[in-house]
Amino acid sequence: MKPRLWAPFASRVEIEILNQDPNLILKMDPVRSINSLGWFELQDIDLKPGTDYRFILDKEQVVPDPRSVWQPEGVHGPSRVVDHNSYNWQDDTWKGFSLSSAVIYECHVGTFTPEGTFKGVMKKLDYLIELGINTLELMPVSEFPGRWGWGYDGVDLYAVRDSYGGPQGLKELVDSCHQKGIAVVLDVVYNHFGPSGNYLSKFGPYFSDKYSTPWGDAINLDESGSDEVRNFLIDNAVTWFKDFHFDALRLDAIHAIFDTSATHFLTQLSDRIQDLSAEIGKPCYLIAESDLNNPRVISPIEIDGFGFDSQWSDDFHHSLWAILTNETNGYYADFGTIADLAEAFKSAFVYKGQYSIFRNRSHGSHPVNKRYSNFLAYIQDHDQVGNRAIGDRLSHVVDLDFVKMAAGLVLVSGFIPMIFQGEEWAASTPFLYFSDHSEPELGQAVTQGRQKEFASFGWDPSCIPDPQSESSFLNSKLNWDELGESKHQELLQWYKDLLRLRKDGKSLGDCALGKIDIEYSEEEKWLIIRKSSKLAIVNFSDSKAGSNLSWIKNSVKVLLSSQKVDLEDLRKGYLPPKSFIFLELN
Amino acid sequence: MKPRLWAPFASRVEIEILNQDPNLILKMDPVRSINSLGWFELQDIDLKPGTDYRFILDKEQVVPDPRSVWQPEGVHGPSRVVDHNSYNWQDDTWKGFSLSSAVIYECHVGTFTPEGTFKGVMKKLDYLIELGINTLELMPVSEFPGRWGWGYDGVDLYAVRDSYGGPQGLKELVDSCHQKGIAVVLDVVYNHFGPSGNYLSKFGPYFSDKYSTPWGDAINLDESGSDEVRNFLIDNAVTWFKDFHFDALRLDAIHAIFDTSATHFLTQLSDRIQDLSAEIGKPCYLIAESDLNNPRVISPIEIDGFGFDSQWSDDFHHSLWAILTNETNGYYADFGTIADLAEAFKSAFVYKGQYSIFRNRSHGSHPVNKRYSNFLAYIQDHDQVGNRAIGDRLSHVVDLDFVKMAAGLVLVSGFIPMIFQGEEWAASTPFLYFSDHSEPELGQAVTQGRQKEFASFGWDPSCIPDPQSESSFLNSKLNWDELGESKHQELLQWYKDLLRLRKDGKSLGDCALGKIDIEYSEEEKWLIIRKSSKLAIVNFSDSKAGSNLSWIKNSVKVLLSSQKVDLEDLRKGYLPPKSFIFLELN
Repeated sequence: MKPRLWAPFASRVEIEILNQDPNLILKMDPVRSINSLGWFELQDIDLKPGTDYRFILDKEQVVPDPRSVWQPEGVHGPSRVVDHNSYNWQDDTWKGFSLSSAVIYECHVGTFTPEGTFKGVMKKLDYLIELGINTLELMPVSEFPGRWGWGYDGVDLYAVRDSYGGPQGLKELVDSCHQKGIAVVLDVVYNHFGPSGNYLSKFGPYFSDKYSTPWGDAINLDESGSDEVRNFLIDNAVTWFKDFHFDALRLDAIHAIFDTSATHFLTQLSDRIQDLSAEIGKPCYLIAESDLNNPRVISPIEIDGFGFDSQWSDDFHHSLWAILTNETNGYYADFGTIADLAEAFKSAFVYKGQYSIFRNRSHGSHPVNKRYSNFLAYIQDHDQVGNRAIGDRLSHVVDLDFVKMAAGLVLVSGFIPMIFQGEEWAASTPFLYFSDHSEPELGQAVTQGRQKEFASFGWDPSCIPDPQSESSFLNSKLNWDELGESKHQELLQWYKDLLRLRKDGKSLGDCALGKIDIEYSEEEKWLIIRKSSKLAIVNFSDSKAGSNLSWIKNSVKVLLSSQKVDLEDLRKGYLPPKSFIFLELN
Repeated sequence: MKPRLWAPFASRVEIEILNQDPNLILKMDPVRSINSLGWFELQDIDLKPGTDYRFILDKEQVVPDPRSVWQPEGVHGPSRVVDHNSYNWQDDTWKGFSLSSAVIYECHVGTFTPEGTFKGVMKKLDYLIELGINTLELMPVSEFPGRWGWGYDGVDLYAVRDSYGGPQGLKELVDSCHQKGIAVVLDVVYNHFGPSGNYLSKFGPYFSDKYSTPWGDAINLDESGSDEVRNFLIDNAVTWFKDFHFDALRLDAIHAIFDTSATHFLTQLSDRIQDLSAEIGKPCYLIAESDLNNPRVISPIEIDGFGFDSQWSDDFHHSLWAILTNETNGYYADFGTIADLAEAFKSAFVYKGQYSIFRNRSHGSHPVNKRYSNFLAYIQDHDQVGNRAIGDRLSHVVDLDFVKMAAGLVLVSGFIPMIFQGEEWAASTPFLYFSDHSEPELGQAVTQGRQKEFASFGWDPSCIPDPQSESSFLNSKLNWDELGESKHQELLQWYKDLLRLRKDGKSLGDCALGKIDIEYSEEEKWLIIRKSSKLAIVNFSDSKAGSNLSWIKNSVKVLLSSQKVDLEDLRKGYLPPKSFIFLELN
């Protein structure tokens, strides 16, 4: 590797090559080309893989490489040279996948298995295949400070978390997935950097005070020097696809990526990734987490959209969760009716410009020319579970009947379904928020911030698990022994049945938004979604609801049902209490 | 007028009705409807026109009405009731105008005439008609603090500056313009409010710390409570069209209007104004000042654009100015070649994604499906003159030949041309930056800020006129006596000749961007713009440049020329030094 560094804030840059006696310090040359302002390089040196090195700015500041691929001693330590070309990929037969057919399983490497490593995840791939999963999504794996964490406070964007297995371990995982026919999605954070171990501001104008994010300084994407900051992020996206063979990236909280320049950073990113897809001959997808309810996110770049392939649908989650739990705190204040859920099924966005009580403003706009596969549906994810006071899952809040109904709606829908680790067997473990900030002030701020947040919802602060406590991390680890118990097996079988239906092409399937028929009764609490001969029926009420629908005149075939179905009752229009039924009309 | 106030930050609102003995104080009722949260009203009271009143928030804060139409005692004083319906409009025959045919004259009411009032402007309308102007643009007229100012620090957005003539005077001016066939454009500021006399933060969440502008707090357009803030601005735009009969609004610095919600405020505004246009049966146009080089600003709202009809083209100004003056300071570093000017004529944006030295980043994007009339062209405007250290105009910097060439290029182009007050006669008066902040700290900050800004360009601070000094205001007043002098008459006649050509439909005319042919020589410093049989030719060099072009074989008719043209020379391809020639081919 020829050392290169963009550091326009430094007038002198040296590289220190370690593991020698004495360590070698070499002055780097400023690049003189107009297109490379602020870059330093050393043309004559080629660092061998495995070499440890760091940079010295202006004779003072010793810093790791911001594009380091491996930080074996953590975010403050030296960087280690990795040769991407030396990995011997075995996934030649993998030609990518179709996102609209994906069934995604979201996992946090540190808590998914007892080992908490990529190798641990690899041991579970056969389990996932048996479950019916074809796509694995990893929560962020970029190096972050501390012994554990969710990963959204990453500071070395290019470096793969050493404790998970480092870059080699990650490649082995992706390689193994591909050989088993599983696509892999990586969660990346381009809206902020973690507060600790963040040396970027020493190098150049990575940050801006034009905008502010809830998590710290905004990244400079549209002011002086922003071209290289944008390149830093875009090259990072490229490396995951190209050097690590990922099939898709999930971008965290794109609503906090601020850019008012003529070409939005996300449009530029999509454009680059579309080119890359052609270059490497494999589909490369981008998926957004967006709180904007703005269809522009998933509109083509040709019409000034951000060009994302799909985005998470919180409105679907919230409308379903609110009905299942009757919760009204926070954003659930905006949901709670069957009509909301029906709207989520019809338009993905429930809020398309209406006034939102939670936001105290109008929210969203109409999605035009969008498909179901432009949206991910889920009833659990790391945020929706982990951002609750005690990290409790749906299965901790409602009984198994409701859990099954929720899974039914998610997994037969035309949306891209996503399951959160352990959801499929009603894991008894919570998924808590956990962090390990070594700076006492920062750690205290995280602890108190969380206590304060939930105190506003009436929680006793002493009942809120401390994110900084090791137990919050350990308690969030899945307990795979539970799978032996019949209750867990029962739910697991239900998930398998639903996914089998989906795999066999018998679920509702992808199509343009709105091209389904929906009927519901707010009072009787049932909802029917029909697409040609397929019907998904859910009765949220405790009593046998009367649906009174015309289809009952057809002869019907029950493909799947969460409760025992009496066909005679069904023909009379009666739906079993707390049931999900999937029918085919003849 | 039934008193109404949106003040969600107040728990108690009273209205004080003045000019009575004793003054009447009445408690206002909170409106209970979900759609009117934070509003207070008094259903039983109908204030007569001419009544002075103010509001009292929580028994403490005495404040003017934020929607006051008239502040006869300034921004801190009471508000006066105005009945818009009582004005007897005489402009029934005015049915609006076509923006693509506009020739705009920009004026600052306070300095355009000795009177510094709307009545003063009215006295000049016949002069403007004789000049060939069909559209008058007023710099902001909303009430601002101090005895004089440019008007961009307005705080009472609905109130018409009392010293200019108040709401009645403004209506008389617009009425008179319309009766004389002149359209009227108003400059409005929706990106920030002035720092002084600004009570808005007492009422509700008008401001946001999510974004920052160069001039202070950003306006809250996408956070809690923003619906009513957006309505405040949109209703303001509506009142100028509806109650004051304006034909167009020019929005100041839209690049500082931050909104990342699903429907951008500017799209919502355009949508409303398009509806309004249908309601009142007259075209209502929106023109943007935008530093973004983003075609989205002038793209239709149907494709997620902001829906503006036209925008100012600084790239045209800068590319022309840089050639005429050879200046390289500040943003002129990005310009200076004939190629830049040719690009401005071809695409309006010179920067369409290239690296800009001035900005130290890539800038702009390609305008697709746009017309020349989507852009305003000018070689002087209040900013380009007034934001110079000593407010000098083009005619103070270069000789008359160059001034004529510049006017020629602006006025025969397909762009919408704009002339800044006095430009047409090479007024000897500068247009300085002037303000009158009564708060000593604020005034000092403005003075020092300006000195510091220009010191960075090598100016001696003692040479920079003090914006806070009365002389800066007085020296900026046009001296109409100059018009008697032959030098001034000569240029005036040139402007009249050019505008006559334009009026007769003999200029280049509007069409899709790029549908003209351009040839130029960087070395010999000439540029030829051809649209079918029309040719605008400019030779920037001091010597007789050889153009060597094929058109010379045609027989040609010189429609207008700033220098004596020898047709024999022209046929040989020689262009007179420092000349602008407008030809028609036979």
